[in-house]
Amino acid sequence: LTLIIALDPPTGVDPVEWCRSIFERTRDIATGFKIGLPAIVEAGASRIGEVFRGFDGLVIADLKLADIGDIMALTVEKLARCGFNAVIAHAFVGYERGLSTLSEKCRELGVKLVAVVSMSHPGSVEVMDGVVEKLISVVERARCWGVVAPATRPEMVRFVRSRLSWVKILSPGVGAQGARPGDALCAGADYEIVGRAITRSSDPREAARRVVEEQRRALERCRA
Amino acid sequence: LTLIIALDPPTGVDPVEWCRSIFERTRDIATGFKIGLPAIVEAGASRIGEVFRGFDGLVIADLKLADIGDIMALTVEKLARCGFNAVIAHAFVGYERGLSTLSEKCRELGVKLVAVVSMSHPGSVEVMDGVVEKLISVVERARCWGVVAPATRPEMVRFVRSRLSWVKILSPGVGAQGARPGDALCAGADYEIVGRAITRSSDPREAARRVVEEQRRALERCRA
Repeated sequence: LTLIIALDPPTGVDPVEWCRSIFERTRDIATGFKIGLPAIVEAGASRIGEVFRGFDGLVIADLKLADIGDIMALTVEKLARCGFNAVIAHAFVGYERGLSTLSEKCRELGVKLVAVVSMSHPGSVEVMDGVVEKLISVVERARCWGVVAPATRPEMVRFVRSRLSWVKILSPGVGAQGARPGDALCAGADYEIVGRAITRSSDPREAARRVVEEQRRALERCRA
Repeated sequence: LTLIIALDPPTGVDPVEWCRSIFERTRDIATGFKIGLPAIVEAGASRIGEVFRGFDGLVIADLKLADIGDIMALTVEKLARCGFNAVIAHAFVGYERGLSTLSEKCRELGVKLVAVVSMSHPGSVEVMDGVVEKLISVVERARCWGVVAPATRPEMVRFVRSRLSWVKILSPGVGAQGARPGDALCAGADYEIVGRAITRSSDPREAARRVVEEQRRALERCRA
């Protein structure tokens, strides 16, 4: 399974009920779910976490953590208690008492640590792209389980894969942001993260099925 | 007034009641309060925000936002609705569709945008320090209201002040992390952020008073 569904509730709906509704309709098609900061800030982690009780796939808190190690570790403790089993943090904060503290806590709790090394918006070029080698070395030192690299920039996915053969690559940006299902997988990603193309569809289950089918076909083509 | 109190509830207490108790005892001494990510993640922004209803000082959500502009803007909308009037974000996400989108939304909502350009943990040296000029130019372009620079590194406070005369500088790291009250003010900061030295004291009100008194004396000395 190569599909992670990004749950970002639109404004004006109950975020918990909205997440539950998409989750229930797609849980057997997706390998995991990624919940964004706005929903967690609005509802609190425990109300969101309850939605996924009993699900044994990935439940990723996409907080893009970027604080000192102690604060990130404290946050992850709370997330783990609420049922999240993976968390996204920035490699930018560095290793010493940054990702080092966080990765130790994650290992202790059995939470998968996923680090951002590149982002999909144009501003990512201004600062982050210039230090991508340093970010990758932070990921290496912290022995992160995974890395986020945008599907909209397959050359970045390829670059990360060439440097870190063992890491899981999670690629957002498929669908509404422009990448096609399979683009990132063909460039070396392990999972593609799809949000609005599924969650805003009138039939999320059917939309998720179509994405998986397109991924399968793209992989057949690029591996041929 | 030059004191901002950092509210980071210890584990095992009700974060809302804990924040309320410190707030009620110190609200006339502090110019504002900074609430960290763990408390907001645990309780949700609206329950935390309620604590400060009617307070006309700074109520800062210290989420260290570091996402694409749209997601940060959506988060700030929710925070503003919950009573927060300032938010901390990272300059390293860049300007274009990063801080540009966020700062526009902040202006629209009357929320003060505070950007991180340097942090207090050792990992800050690994990546961020090497690009501090770039981070400062992102702050300039986004016309941020304030900047976070650690009191534990007064040379960084001085550097930011020399580059951005108009910006408010907020300096954490006073007390438990090692800087003395007044150190950052003397280096050019506008506010010092003090957490545990006040919040874990048996008498938070008295501890806050003492910090303000020490700040006043330090300023007298360094301005003499």
